Amino acid sequence: MNNIAILLLSCKDKKGLVYKITKLIYELNGNIIDLDEHVDPIETMFFVRAAWSFDENLTNKNYIKELFSVLANEFSASWEINFEDEKQNVAIFVSKYDHCLNEILWRNKLNEFNIKISLIISNHTDLRTLAENYQIQFYHFKTNQNNKNKIEQIEINLLNENNIDVIVLARYMQILSPDFVKEFPNKIINIHHSFLPAFVGGNPYKQAYERGVKIIGATSHFVTNELDEGPIIEQDIIRITHNDSLKDLIIKGRDLERLVLARALLLQSQNRILVYGKKTIVF
Amino acid sequence: MNNIAILLLSCKDKKGLVYKITKLIYELNGNIIDLDEHVDPIETMFFVRAAWSFDENLTNKNYIKELFSVLANEFSASWEINFEDEKQNVAIFVSKYDHCLNEILWRNKLNEFNIKISLIISNHTDLRTLAENYQIQFYHFKTNQNNKNKIEQIEINLLNENNIDVIVLARYMQILSPDFVKEFPNKIINIHHSFLPAFVGGNPYKQAYERGVKIIGATSHFVTNELDEGPIIEQDIIRITHNDSLKDLIIKGRDLERLVLARALLLQSQNRILVYGKKTIVF
Amino acid sequence: MNNIAILLLSCKDKKGLVYKITKLIYELNGNIIDLDEHVDPIETMFFVRAAWSFDENLTNKNYIKELFSVLANEFSASWEINFEDEKQNVAIFVSKYDHCLNEILWRNKLNEFNIKISLIISNHTDLRTLAENYQIQFYHFKTNQNNKNKIEQIEINLLNENNIDVIVLARYMQILSPDFVKEFPNKIINIHHSFLPAFVGGNPYKQAYERGVKIIGATSHFVTNELDEGPIIEQDIIRITHNDSLKDLIIKGRDLERLVLARALLLQSQNRILVYGKKTIVF
Amino acid sequence: MNNIAILLLSCKDKKGLVYKITKLIYELNGNIIDLDEHVDPIETMFFVRAAWSFDENLTNKNYIKELFSVLANEFSASWEINFEDEKQNVAIFVSKYDHCLNEILWRNKLNEFNIKISLIISNHTDLRTLAENYQIQFYHFKTNQNNKNKIEQIEINLLNENNIDVIVLARYMQILSPDFVKEFPNKIINIHHSFLPAFVGGNPYKQAYERGVKIIGATSHFVTNELDEGPIIEQDIIRITHNDSLKDLIIKGRDLERLVLARALLLQSQNRILVYGKKTIVF
Repeated sequence: MNNIAILLLSCKDKKGLVYKITKLIYELNGNIIDLDEHVDPIETMFFVRAAWSFDENLTNKNYIKELFSVLANEFSASWEINFEDEKQNVAIFVSKYDHCLNEILWRNKLNEFNIKISLIISNHTDLRTLAENYQIQFYHFKTNQNNKNKIEQIEINLLNENNIDVIVLARYMQILSPDFVKEFPNKIINIHHSFLPAFVGGNPYKQAYERGVKIIGATSHFVTNELDEGPIIEQDIIRITHNDSLKDLIIKGRDLERLVLARALLLQSQNRILVYGKKTIVF
Repeated sequence: MNNIAILLLSCKDKKGLVYKITKLIYELNGNIIDLDEHVDPIETMFFVRAAWSFDENLTNKNYIKELFSVLANEFSASWEINFEDEKQNVAIFVSKYDHCLNEILWRNKLNEFNIKISLIISNHTDLRTLAENYQIQFYHFKTNQNNKNKIEQIEINLLNENNIDVIVLARYMQILSPDFVKEFPNKIINIHHSFLPAFVGGNPYKQAYERGVKIIGATSHFVTNELDEGPIIEQDIIRITHNDSLKDLIIKGRDLERLVLARALLLQSQNRILVYGKKTIVF
Repeated sequence: MNNIAILLLSCKDKKGLVYKITKLIYELNGNIIDLDEHVDPIETMFFVRAAWSFDENLTNKNYIKELFSVLANEFSASWEINFEDEKQNVAIFVSKYDHCLNEILWRNKLNEFNIKISLIISNHTDLRTLAENYQIQFYHFKTNQNNKNKIEQIEINLLNENNIDVIVLARYMQILSPDFVKEFPNKIINIHHSFLPAFVGGNPYKQAYERGVKIIGATSHFVTNELDEGPIIEQDIIRITHNDSLKDLIIKGRDLERLVLARALLLQSQNRILVYGKKTIVF
Repeated sequence: MNNIAILLLSCKDKKGLVYKITKLIYELNGNIIDLDEHVDPIETMFFVRAAWSFDENLTNKNYIKELFSVLANEFSASWEINFEDEKQNVAIFVSKYDHCLNEILWRNKLNEFNIKISLIISNHTDLRTLAENYQIQFYHFKTNQNNKNKIEQIEINLLNENNIDVIVLARYMQILSPDFVKEFPNKIINIHHSFLPAFVGGNPYKQAYERGVKIIGATSHFVTNELDEGPIIEQDIIRITHNDSLKDLIIKGRDLERLVLARALLLQSQNRILVYGKKTIVF
């Protein structure tokens, strides 16, 4: 019964870290299939991602976690271990645009992500049919100024009841409150339709059109309570010319948005992202 | 004696513009080799670049200009005509970094640009040898808070005496005063070492490093009196990762800077750029 | 009743071509909104695309065609005129892979293409449901060695009865016979999953994997009777590393395939492609 | 006295490899600053690059090499260790084109590479001045059909006397004989001016122009005795259109050539390349 364990760990750098980690993997009968390590020389911080295969009949998952807990404690490290057979549980928030949702659902059907999409939450009903075509539970919560806090609390409960690990904002046109965000630190992935930090806030394509840039972009980042300021996971760009109208920018941009968001979700689903301060280390 | 004429013209759009322009070219015995036209549907503005070959023994340059002057008057158009055998006269401003200057001089030696580089002006002496290797006149003006206006006036005189058409700021680390800029409207090309409008002002690589972006850029634009706000000519980007230190960003960025600035100068030297408001039309 | 006419024309280059074309457009009360012209200096061939708006109440479509027929005759030109309100009629051929079909149908629903998709033909039944979700007629023809000619004749009849203008091979895993191809010259658009001319023929991702390239590509081209040798419309690439398995190449590649094929179809639907010999001019 | 050691090692994969390697680094008082590992699941081969800092007063370089020799022996591994303070010794072969040589010399002056360029060899004298501007020894060997073997033997002797580690063919227009190549296995870096395996052999830009591709490329690879078939180190591409003449392709292509070759040399100078069969693993 082969399985794969993936360790993400960060701590203050010192000698012997990789040695002690790989020693433990060796003692746990693991065969490393991928190991990547980064040292930030300014912060003298150590970051590592190690993936190893092991036989679950010989080595118990909880035992692996226990031993790494001891080691991480010794290093005063932040860490997590995930197993390939335990898919991350994902909720997707949407409004009216279908391109990002469609992309994620289609890719997931082709097994590009190692995730389970448990539910879709929307403040509109437009994408109910799309959700149902893929047999995923769709929840509609009509929000307004007065009920926002109450709705968010219902959503938090729903997410927790379903043991959601990751929330994807697939062009969700509402700003989440600090109370919501603090429940899911570095677990909410957003797509912003500009090359951040250019064109923060609303209508970035209009801003880009008016500024006359020659390239537009899209940025996927974790959500924090500073608007469009969270740690960036992935960005990409596309070239435009004076021939492109604002409508053309929106059309070209939505190709970027769905590809960049899909790549960010892929990285997350493969446990490749470590957050440190306002930055990500993407292995 | 074959020559090529290049028309750049913009005016309010109406029926018959291309017809009347190409009729005149035909009557002037020209053979169009390249024609590109753009209509801005929001501003209802018309932009055109037409290049045609003609025999100077049969058609006089001044006669061409005269007839187009009449037509442009009829259209209330902004316009210019340039001839391939009259090279644009370029001055380059530099400080200490050599990469942009080196790139331009090397490309010019290989005849990539149809320009004449008449002089190099610097507030430092570091690049004198490089200028001299390419046999180009090098002027050093040491500037400080007190003499800035006076030095700029000397520079303006020097540029005018040499009939300079285009000024290239090849990582020139001084901000030109409004009095200087207004002497050369849409004729001063700058390279900014970021993907504008992200990271305006000083130390853009440091800003990019601290923000944790996954892509850095460079932007070439015409200089106006609003810092880093002039019409953008060309931009490009390069991917970075958490492995890249601030020093790596600077090294990768200088490749971008020199390529983007060289492309902007190429476009300018081929008379491909029209400015309208804060934007460029690049044919 | 505003409409837009789009002329594509090519002929031997000589003086006055643009003038005579734009004169006619002017006399037909057209307002040019886009004009692009190219002269091949080696072949001395002239290529033009002109788009103009006109009022159908004032100018009759057939009258436009008649007058241009006379002019094209004078130039000994190849030419066609299309009108924006007459959508190109498209048939899509597929086998089992859904990514290209899904992409085209989704984009078409969002009105990115100015086309009508009339029917989908397949040698398998896998994509019937997808076709039906978008309410498009799906035809299944089971082909084998013995019935290939007969089936192709049925398909040709079906395409002609439906007045199909353009055929898109969206990862159709059959080679069309010369008899089929000659019925639709420069009207069959294929996507090949490599950066042509690298890796022609079968299994290009396997070929790329074994060669150890650092970049893979996709190529959309018109089909001729030389395999993978038709005029190229559009290409794009994506970077890979030693970490990418053959399966990763296939996953990354299918993103390319659907984007490149969609771009080629967009160019075709906007009447931007002229074929000359083995090459395309894409305006 | 801080130094950095860099290990490149490959062997058949098995459990405990990273553990045993990092254990030894730990016992040698090294602090790992970069570690990257790859397992080829089809070949079950293990590849690793580890860089660590150490104090030369405490740990002797030869001692490091001795202990790793024992370990590599145990693994039946191919391996090498290099030290940051021992620069790779480079010879550059050129003919008449200056762009690649100019790029490498300029970057090296800015310390982008951790190398020593000891000599330049050419079958022409055109680039002697450029070599001398950078104070590098220039050797001219006029070759013809009759003296090729003799000249190559002189060159081999010259390279060996100068303890050359790496040979860069910077658009060297001669094909090296098998006898020459076998002296420097995986140590001769070439730049080919196409996107290999497209357009092998002579005149790739002409081939690309005639085929009508929309993208051109350049490829840097190690030289083997099969023309343009050696392990690929780095590739890049640039977009072209029908507007680009063959001359434009050459101009655009030389930008690619110099950047791709420079990147390959950078990777080599940082000991980031492992060769396995016809492929490279680039860490």
